[in-house]
Amino acid sequence: WDWIKSGHDAWSGWLCVFLVGVIAGAFAGMIDIGTSWMSDLRFGICPEAFWFNQEQCCWSSNETFYDGDNCSNWYSWPEVFGHEPNGAGAYIISYIFYILWSLLFASLAASLVMMFAPYACGSGIPEIKTILSGFIIRGYLGKWTLLIKSLGMILAVSAGLSLGKEGPLVHVACCIGNIFSYAFPKYGKNEAKKREILSAAAAVGVSVAFGAPIGGVLFSLEEASYYFPLKTLWRSFFAALVAAFVLRSINPFGNEHSVLFYVEYNKPWIFIELVPFIILGVIGGIIGMLFIKFNIKWCRFRKTSLMGQYPRLEVLIVTLITAFIAYPNPYTRMNTSNLIYLLFSQCGVANNDNLCDYQRNFTNVNTAIEIAAAGPGVLQAVWLLALALIFKCVVTVFTFGIKVPCGLFIPSLAMGSIIGRLVGIGMEQLAYNYPEWAVFAGECSTGENCITPGLYAMVGAAAVLGGVTRMTVSLVVIMFELTGGVRYIVPLMAAVMASKWIGDAFGREGIYDAHIILNGYPFLDSKEEFSHTTLANDVMKPGKNESFYVITQDSMTLDDVEQLLRETDHNGFPVVVSRQSQYLVGFVARRDLNIAISQAKKTTEGIVGESIVLFTSSVPSPWMGPPPLRLRKILDLAPITITDHTPMETVVDMFRKLGLRQTLVTHNGRLLGIITKKDVLRHIKFLESEDPESVLFN
Amino acid sequence: WDWIKSGHDAWSGWLCVFLVGVIAGAFAGMIDIGTSWMSDLRFGICPEAFWFNQEQCCWSSNETFYDGDNCSNWYSWPEVFGHEPNGAGAYIISYIFYILWSLLFASLAASLVMMFAPYACGSGIPEIKTILSGFIIRGYLGKWTLLIKSLGMILAVSAGLSLGKEGPLVHVACCIGNIFSYAFPKYGKNEAKKREILSAAAAVGVSVAFGAPIGGVLFSLEEASYYFPLKTLWRSFFAALVAAFVLRSINPFGNEHSVLFYVEYNKPWIFIELVPFIILGVIGGIIGMLFIKFNIKWCRFRKTSLMGQYPRLEVLIVTLITAFIAYPNPYTRMNTSNLIYLLFSQCGVANNDNLCDYQRNFTNVNTAIEIAAAGPGVLQAVWLLALALIFKCVVTVFTFGIKVPCGLFIPSLAMGSIIGRLVGIGMEQLAYNYPEWAVFAGECSTGENCITPGLYAMVGAAAVLGGVTRMTVSLVVIMFELTGGVRYIVPLMAAVMASKWIGDAFGREGIYDAHIILNGYPFLDSKEEFSHTTLANDVMKPGKNESFYVITQDSMTLDDVEQLLRETDHNGFPVVVSRQSQYLVGFVARRDLNIAISQAKKTTEGIVGESIVLFTSSVPSPWMGPPPLRLRKILDLAPITITDHTPMETVVDMFRKLGLRQTLVTHNGRLLGIITKKDVLRHIKFLESEDPESVLFN
Repeated sequence: WDWIKSGHDAWSGWLCVFLVGVIAGAFAGMIDIGTSWMSDLRFGICPEAFWFNQEQCCWSSNETFYDGDNCSNWYSWPEVFGHEPNGAGAYIISYIFYILWSLLFASLAASLVMMFAPYACGSGIPEIKTILSGFIIRGYLGKWTLLIKSLGMILAVSAGLSLGKEGPLVHVACCIGNIFSYAFPKYGKNEAKKREILSAAAAVGVSVAFGAPIGGVLFSLEEASYYFPLKTLWRSFFAALVAAFVLRSINPFGNEHSVLFYVEYNKPWIFIELVPFIILGVIGGIIGMLFIKFNIKWCRFRKTSLMGQYPRLEVLIVTLITAFIAYPNPYTRMNTSNLIYLLFSQCGVANNDNLCDYQRNFTNVNTAIEIAAAGPGVLQAVWLLALALIFKCVVTVFTFGIKVPCGLFIPSLAMGSIIGRLVGIGMEQLAYNYPEWAVFAGECSTGENCITPGLYAMVGAAAVLGGVTRMTVSLVVIMFELTGGVRYIVPLMAAVMASKWIGDAFGREGIYDAHIILNGYPFLDSKEEFSHTTLANDVMKPGKNESFYVITQDSMTLDDVEQLLRETDHNGFPVVVSRQSQYLVGFVARRDLNIAISQAKKTTEGIVGESIVLFTSSVPSPWMGPPPLRLRKILDLAPITITDHTPMETVVDMFRKLGLRQTLVTHNGRLLGIITKKDVLRHIKFLESEDPESVLFN
Repeated sequence: WDWIKSGHDAWSGWLCVFLVGVIAGAFAGMIDIGTSWMSDLRFGICPEAFWFNQEQCCWSSNETFYDGDNCSNWYSWPEVFGHEPNGAGAYIISYIFYILWSLLFASLAASLVMMFAPYACGSGIPEIKTILSGFIIRGYLGKWTLLIKSLGMILAVSAGLSLGKEGPLVHVACCIGNIFSYAFPKYGKNEAKKREILSAAAAVGVSVAFGAPIGGVLFSLEEASYYFPLKTLWRSFFAALVAAFVLRSINPFGNEHSVLFYVEYNKPWIFIELVPFIILGVIGGIIGMLFIKFNIKWCRFRKTSLMGQYPRLEVLIVTLITAFIAYPNPYTRMNTSNLIYLLFSQCGVANNDNLCDYQRNFTNVNTAIEIAAAGPGVLQAVWLLALALIFKCVVTVFTFGIKVPCGLFIPSLAMGSIIGRLVGIGMEQLAYNYPEWAVFAGECSTGENCITPGLYAMVGAAAVLGGVTRMTVSLVVIMFELTGGVRYIVPLMAAVMASKWIGDAFGREGIYDAHIILNGYPFLDSKEEFSHTTLANDVMKPGKNESFYVITQDSMTLDDVEQLLRETDHNGFPVVVSRQSQYLVGFVARRDLNIAISQAKKTTEGIVGESIVLFTSSVPSPWMGPPPLRLRKILDLAPITITDHTPMETVVDMFRKLGLRQTLVTHNGRLLGIITKKDVLRHIKFLESEDPESVLFN
């Protein structure tokens, strides 16, 4: 039995992350299926089986070929009402149904969030970063949040809002991680251990969001987690693998690849293309920076103005505007993931979108694609894409922050891939029209197409996402897991670096850090260097002329202690030898003190207000007066201490690396004061000339 | 000017890693070219230009087609001496030349290492791990090591020994990192900062070794580095990118891909194949575990026996045996990288090795490869591969540890890919002979080849390398960057996990950790959990009945202090208020004390042996006697302290995360003792019932 018990102890971590992986994979699969069905519902219905989406509906029909959007089994809304599928009347009916369904989905999502789980709104990543740094937000990872976030995500994405389900999937996975950790006492009862599970869950979230297990692990390492021990790396890897595998088995994308936007390009990139790639990076950095700036301004405005009081109305207005503008443009009407996939792909025989309307004819499937002049379709597509880009940029600023679950990855990727595709088409036509230029001489002289606009879309997508989130390594890995383009690491890296540098030059925080600051979460950034010359002495409480609350080890009565508890709201008190000497003995937490006192009153006889509270190990004899209250067992005899001359740089480092909540400050062994995490955060804010009082703390 | 200075300060880190990347890339390119030339020299020579290797020699000839090994420009050794290129006589001449060249190269390598840079031997990774954990080995990363290691690596690989150049390349890159860090005072003068550069350099090393930049960063994170801040992640990424790019520009592999073993498989893997993949993982784990065990035993035997005194003789014997056995078998005669590449690839039209001698005919290039019975060539190849496997396994145990630069990655990959290929061929023939089995029913029923033996080789290679090094995430990433097989993450992950679990079940250390323990380096493993219940009190010095050397702040004379310095060899001394009270004031390092005293004797008048050494800030007045020696400025007023009741778990954690060298132990503000890193390491050894005295310390 002991053997089983110790085995269970050793394996419980693995079992827990395994379960998290399986369940999160299943959730992601269901969410994908739900989203796909509901999105298609805006366009039409499958009368034979209304729970089929368009693709499944057409599969179930016997037609082996159906062209693009139409198969006889699938009825678009005008058809349902007996109209012709084409013509002005049908267009208006479709338009109206599109808007109505969108409004319905969005209002449902907003109502669910508001009524059942207010924490389910937003992307959740800023909060998860804060939780992983050691802060506790009760209920943030509960089962209601899980349920409502999953449902709300399906509804919000189906409403055609400019948002993605990637960030929320991380939140969902963390909820699952949190819920399962309670099944394993080793993890459920220890916050630090639980954070290991949550780190793995964050990796699982990205893994299922993109089908990118390694990218997920790196995301957890780079962006989400605060302290990431190597053991966690290995477990996260396992969990991400399991989740990706479960999702692949459910196969919501309906193809054999386990990657979301699988693309293959015929040609490798050529050296000179690094120039447009870096330019894309710069553009991505600028867009990301502007996006963060405007979004934060808008969110701050929402907080302070009347608008914040009508979140449901805001959701409806944003949805109405989005749907109204999105429908006429085919590139915004379609699913954002489909748009990204379309932009990433290269033009081949099968692709009959306007984007591929080149003046070339495919006589032989096997010959390489030749470079060709753009046809009128391409020119039209370019205009529509430019309009789509402007629309996406503006509407996403207003969308990120409304009270529905909403992620930023997909909209950022969409913006980036539009820019990239436009630049790519430009480069391609340049190479077609001026093949004699030295820069094109080598590769383009054969008449083959040496420029792949789809690759530019991929690089642009990475650049904008990099500019918005300031992720680096994890982003590159996600991008190439996403696309299967292992050959294109160098272009991706170059663009992401350019984007990050440009973004950082204008404002150091990514969107998630900016939202953490906006919301005033107590997050001690582990990336920023603290290089000020202040000493612990300058930061510690009490400052000058403030009183310091300590407990002496053998001279305070129960009444004294209870008075102290009433008068202050500190989380704990240092215990010293005597008030005169102030030599430090230990630290006692308020919670333990409360419990011990109330228990002692119940169980021990003779405890009265005048009883001495004793923290020493032995009772001095002979003892006079009422029986003492002996509390040595609740005393933390090993509090972390520093001296008053310790530079704050070291102190901040200790808070980060050891995950401290407070440290005691001594001088020659005497207690001088205390520094809490709140004091450190306030001090940093103060040094950065921001308002120190904006730091929240539970 | 100030602006330039602060700019330089901010950018110096980036500039430094950029330079490291460029130079390491160039070094790797030169090493690759040198190795390829020298390896071919064992087989023949290019009379027109002796500095050409076989491939270049044949390129320069005008024959557009040449079959495999022969072109008229390249003369094999029998041809040089006027023999027929075929026949028994020619075979013997080739054999002898092969052995002679191997011996020449190996003895040159061994002599260079012994004469100029004894640190250049081995893989270097255990030492780099130790250095990155905070230990300093003078000269280990110097310019002589760099030069001799680069040269020796070329020679050792060319000698056909069963070793790779991947580990040594990490060492070379770290040497370059160390040398460049001196050009930037911010990094050269601060050991902690320098380690950031070295972490990036380790990433660069793997990046150039495999053309795998992301894998390199993860290797540095998972395996090499001890403390890896996120800033370092981003810089390592940049450096690895630059290095990979420089190497790609030099293009030593002579193909357009930036990956070493580029393979593309036609078919995705099928679910049932996970079973053989996991079996491969288990085999890999067992082989890795056995390899570590035997290699460590042999190295320990070498250390204690006479043999250790004749390292050059040992190198020659190993080389002679390797060359003698390797030549007759074509799979061991060829370059190990070529062998791995051959085993990874799938059989197509162009591949005319015995391994691809199937009973199929390629009438049409475009049709899929059908499954077919193995021909006699395959059966012969299987036997030869099995022999090669046994040979490699045995000889590598004796090779790793001889006094030449030698890495383990390539031999491990070679062993693994042989096993994998064998299993793969077995599975393939099983599917061919029993297509009606349920497990093969789905994918294999079409007559296409559903089993790719090359994929098995890849999975097997990852499994054995995982078993030997116990790398996880980084290994999977390196493998798929290496092969470009992004689709095959799940099989790779499954095999690596199985391998790691099996390996860990029998012995927790990977080969590098085992060598760290063997050599007694003071390395505090950050992966192992320390879960004993001892307290700081039990570990600290002085123990019972030992004397404790402290300095008082205002009562010891210069003579007392100098006597203390003579009598002890501690690196530093705590300073206390008085010998009676023992309240801690600060900590003073021996080095600072020595310098301050000798300076004071020179510059300050009136300092005699009876002068009081004062660490207080003010001189008590009136002062009597000779002028005091005031040393407050060298006193560290912020030493890290803990209480005697602190659990050792916390203490170990602090040592790891804060990179401490010692911590002072107090009780109620009074100094009780000191715990140094050495004490911690000894205590861990003691708890693991190993010899505590085997810990080295400079």
